[in-house]
This record gives sequence, structure tokens and C-alpha cells, in this order.
Amino acid sequence: MQKVTLTWAKDFQFICEDDDGHSLLIDTGKDAGGGGAAFKPINLLLVALGGCLAMDIVGILKKKRVDLRGITVEVEGERAAEHPKRFTRMKVVIKPRGEIPEPDLRQAFELSRDKYCSIYATLIHPPEIEYVLEPASK
Amino acid sequence: MQKVTLTWAKDFQFICEDDDGHSLLIDTGKDAGGGGAAFKPINLLLVALGGCLAMDIVGILKKKRVDLRGITVEVEGERAAEHPKRFTRMKVVIKPRGEIPEPDLRQAFELSRDKYCSIYATLIHPPEIEYVLEPASK
Repeated sequence: MQKVTLTWAKDFQFICEDDDGHSLLIDTGKDAGGGGAAFKPINLLLVALGGCLAMDIVGILKKKRVDLRGITVEVEGERAAEHPKRFTRMKVVIKPRGEIPEPDLRQAFELSRDKYCSIYATLIHPPEIEYVLEPASK
Repeated sequence: MQKVTLTWAKDFQFICEDDDGHSLLIDTGKDAGGGGAAFKPINLLLVALGGCLAMDIVGILKKKRVDLRGITVEVEGERAAEHPKRFTRMKVVIKPRGEIPEPDLRQAFELSRDKYCSIYATLIHPPEIEYVLEPASK
């Protein structure tokens, strides 16, 4: 079970906390009436997908003891023009650096995509989502 | 178009950047060989869903000029036991505070869920996801 708690700070800013004591500010952009002070929720979805993949690849290549010197992952998302402006398409570009045999690199990538990446698997197989709206307290 | 870039820092830590100049560290837990120094990708997916909803509700209630004094949103996710351990179920609990007429609150919540929340809409209607694995550079 994973859990996060978001608490309203001001305007459109929320403090988000996980169960391990980390906290994170989120905000929306100035174009949408926010302060533009921090990452937007929509971009965190892209970070989640890219981060999951990137960490898997690093872990697998580390086990293979190849010479990984760096890796950058870019994640782009195209959104529908109309509300709710969902992501219709995402593109993940993986840019590794080092003396890495191509088959090792490809295997690490494919193992993440097809076996390990929880975020990708969630995005392609929708979870059930339940909402509970509590009455307002004083 | 939304874009984020993740750059490997060390171990399982990545620095994530959006197009507005924000940066964010992510890590994995100590149980998975990480440093446990920051939010995990899997929890950022929950933050994205809760944050999108929470900001919508604040914005709608602000337009209605009701007395919203606080709001907390908790997001829980249950994961499959086997790899890729995707989220099978998510639960979002909304806890508002203030003198808010119930119909206004309900309408704000339903407008977010059914009309505005990009993350929810993405989770229930899977996007196309394309990967590009570049050859390793030196």
C-alpha cells in the first residue's frame, strides 16, 4: 500500500507528504492563476513514468557491471485540446552514456518496460479509482 | 506539450527538471537499494492524481466564493503482488474544512472528476506511449 497526503498551503499550492517523511510543494502555473512556484501535477505524472524506467535501467545495468557513466531520460506528453486535456500520447527518450554493449542496454530497457515498470503498467492497465468526499468540517 | 528531463545524479537518484525552471530530486527506498532521500516515482503518481483534483476543487470553490478554510486530500494505492506491481486500485479521500454548502462541495468535486482532471482522465483512458532508446554515447 502506498499513501500520500496533500495539504492546502495557499492559493493553488499544496504540501505533499509520503509515509517516509518526505515533503514536496506543488503548484500550478501563472497562466492558470497559480504562483508557478513548483512542479505541476501534470508534469509529475511524466516524472513518475520516466523515473521508474530510469531507476530500473540503472539497477539492471549496475548488476550487469557495465560502464554506465550517465543517463538522461526525457519524457514528453501531448494533451487533448479540450477538457479534461488528458495525455493522448507520451514519448520517452532514453539517452545513456558510457561503454555499454548494445544488447545489455536493450535488455535493461526491455526488462523495465515489459516486466518491472509499475508506472507504465498502471498507465496501460487502468486501476479502479474510488473517491470519498467527506462533509466539510468546521 | 509538456516535457520533463531526468538526469542521473548518483545511485538511484535523479534530478528532474520541467520547462519552467523547477527541479526536483527523486530516489527509491532503502529497501530497494536506494538512499530513501526523496519522493519515489510511484508516490508521485498518487501526488499527481490528488494534486490535480485538489487544485480544481480549490479553484471552483474560490469562484463560488464559499468559505473554504482548508482541504486535505489523501491518496492511497494498492499494488499487485507480482512484478510489475502496477496499481490495481486507488482511493482518494477529500477532507474539506469551512462553511461550505454541501451541493457546492459536491459540484466542485464532480466537475473536477468528470470534466477537468487531466490525470484522472489519463488514468482511465490509456495514452499511447512510445519509447526511443538512443545508442550509448561516450
